[in-house]
Amino acid sequence: MTELSPTLTLACDLIARNSTTPDDAGCQQLMGERLSACGFKLESMRFGEVDNLWARRGTEGPVLCFAGHTDVVPTGPIERWDNPPFSPVVRDGMLHGRGAADMKGSLAAMIVAVERFIADAPDHKGSIAFLITSDEEGPATEGTVKVVETLVERGEKVDWCIVGEPSSTELVGDVVKNGRRGSLNARLTIKGKQGHVAYPHLARNPIHLAAPALAALAAENWDAGNAFFPPTSFQVSNINAGTGATNVVPGELVALINFRFSTESTAEGLQQRVRDLLDQHGLDYELDWTLSGLPFLTEPGALLDGVSAAIRKVTGRETQPSTTGGTSDGRFIATMGTQVVELGPINATIHQLNEHVSANDLDTLTEIYQATMEQLLT
Amino acid sequence: MTELSPTLTLACDLIARNSTTPDDAGCQQLMGERLSACGFKLESMRFGEVDNLWARRGTEGPVLCFAGHTDVVPTGPIERWDNPPFSPVVRDGMLHGRGAADMKGSLAAMIVAVERFIADAPDHKGSIAFLITSDEEGPATEGTVKVVETLVERGEKVDWCIVGEPSSTELVGDVVKNGRRGSLNARLTIKGKQGHVAYPHLARNPIHLAAPALAALAAENWDAGNAFFPPTSFQVSNINAGTGATNVVPGELVALINFRFSTESTAEGLQQRVRDLLDQHGLDYELDWTLSGLPFLTEPGALLDGVSAAIRKVTGRETQPSTTGGTSDGRFIATMGTQVVELGPINATIHQLNEHVSANDLDTLTEIYQATMEQLLT
Repeated sequence: MTELSPTLTLACDLIARNSTTPDDAGCQQLMGERLSACGFKLESMRFGEVDNLWARRGTEGPVLCFAGHTDVVPTGPIERWDNPPFSPVVRDGMLHGRGAADMKGSLAAMIVAVERFIADAPDHKGSIAFLITSDEEGPATEGTVKVVETLVERGEKVDWCIVGEPSSTELVGDVVKNGRRGSLNARLTIKGKQGHVAYPHLARNPIHLAAPALAALAAENWDAGNAFFPPTSFQVSNINAGTGATNVVPGELVALINFRFSTESTAEGLQQRVRDLLDQHGLDYELDWTLSGLPFLTEPGALLDGVSAAIRKVTGRETQPSTTGGTSDGRFIATMGTQVVELGPINATIHQLNEHVSANDLDTLTEIYQATMEQLLT
Repeated sequence: MTELSPTLTLACDLIARNSTTPDDAGCQQLMGERLSACGFKLESMRFGEVDNLWARRGTEGPVLCFAGHTDVVPTGPIERWDNPPFSPVVRDGMLHGRGAADMKGSLAAMIVAVERFIADAPDHKGSIAFLITSDEEGPATEGTVKVVETLVERGEKVDWCIVGEPSSTELVGDVVKNGRRGSLNARLTIKGKQGHVAYPHLARNPIHLAAPALAALAAENWDAGNAFFPPTSFQVSNINAGTGATNVVPGELVALINFRFSTESTAEGLQQRVRDLLDQHGLDYELDWTLSGLPFLTEPGALLDGVSAAIRKVTGRETQPSTTGGTSDGRFIATMGTQVVELGPINATIHQLNEHVSANDLDTLTEIYQATMEQLLT
């Protein structure tokens, strides 16, 4: 076996630490040591059970921040992994392990890119920063959102942010995310009347009452999207009713619903339309809403131009800005007025068994991150 | 407090035994001692964990059998009972306790009625029998069904059977059940494709797919019933889909469905119609059917005439034969070609907290059972 590149070596060191949310398992210390060695000032910010790291090199603006998370999603049934998830290995050109793609590979690429850039340009313009959390895959309440609050309180500004989320689809760099849809959740309770299945006229079956309304919600066109966003989508993620007994009509049905919404819709507008539709079906219901994130958008400008130029230079590819996909901590960082772009490896296996990523892609990503700094800070 | 009647005294002795399914807790021994004392030959039939009692007085036909169960349903939260469920008490004319109405009151009335009838008519026609189980409220697989198999194997015939299930609705004897609908269960699995809610085009949401089909099943008219049976009814008792996570589209949905069906429909016909409807909706599904009981019907004849005359004589009421409501062990007994009628107290509080029954009604029921024997066996 040939020797691993610096990025792959560091990626393996990170993957070997079982940092299932919210555990950081020493990943931030390892990253911090590398950053400290090339001139970063470190601040550990622990909120609740969550370790966060804010690191900065330089005091001037503009500030280019690399953001990401050390925590990983659970492994699932460990016996179904071809390779133990926390024993990273490169096989057939692929780095295998939990977090290889989401996103310890990106973290390693960022560190190595920054080390190389600073070696070449120790007196770069502005500042470089890292905002690293271990609470991205979990409730995300003690992580980036809290670090951002701290930065806002002390007036520390971040101009540009690259989040290392796996944005690529077929080839590394083919897609960057320049925004995200909003996410709106609700717990919908549809009320009926419990009874015995043998006496249905004495009961009101909430499953029967809910079915036509859920069919209508699933068939609704919420909006058509716009130049930056796909159409708003609606999904029921969970539905539960019943006592377990086969002879009892349940008293209520609970469904968890989710909107991923574009800037063509508002949370308030979607809430009203759901209520209107349930009312049309004559339902007795309760809705408990949670707004997980407002949509954000980074329009073409210095950051998107710099990232696109770096990708073109390293790979020859024209990257495609996109706003599809799930939420990320980018939504919190964008609230500071920061331009935010997500750029990372191919996301095909994230959150799955046998998560893996191309070893070469991580080295390419390292070059892209370095080239972006050259675009923006020299 | 005035002295309790013999029926109420025995009912209290039975209720004091915590015979939650499948425990008999000595109830059958108590009943057997009373029956043995007036000339019954006893046979204990234990199947699996279930105690059953077959008792018979006489060797000739016709055979009139009293059938019932000593087991009771669970109490639910015991602290919510006004009176401890296994400490029977008569208060304001009501006998309180788990099993008071379903069906220890009936068992006590049967025993006392038989004792009195035999005292008056020791040389009655035919035979009197008791078929008592402790597995009616549970899976019902080791109880009456097994006793019936034993009787069939040895060619022992039962002409008429009175099941002591609480059949009455407003006044004791106002309704007797002369049949029961069939019961057909299925576990319906609707298959989709799991995915992330943010990428719905890569998933197929089984909740969205199922909703229109469930709405159609709930709206279907299966049959119109007939002179003896109400229309066939369909109920979804349980529905479950989802991983618990709010950002995952589940891979499948499971619904438990139940038909209570009249003699106008067949189990096979209903199964075919469900498949046709699901196919029309283009669903990928599995159906796992369980036939809990075929419908049975006791048409007007000697038993129904005898019971009706006895109710008229004791209460002045014209009873109403009915086939509504849940299943009972009558479905197993009817397979022997036996005429089966269910006759017991008011069913308003069965299976509930604070189950209770009118004390006077149990004495009236005792008289009705005795008068029925006088109609049929003298």
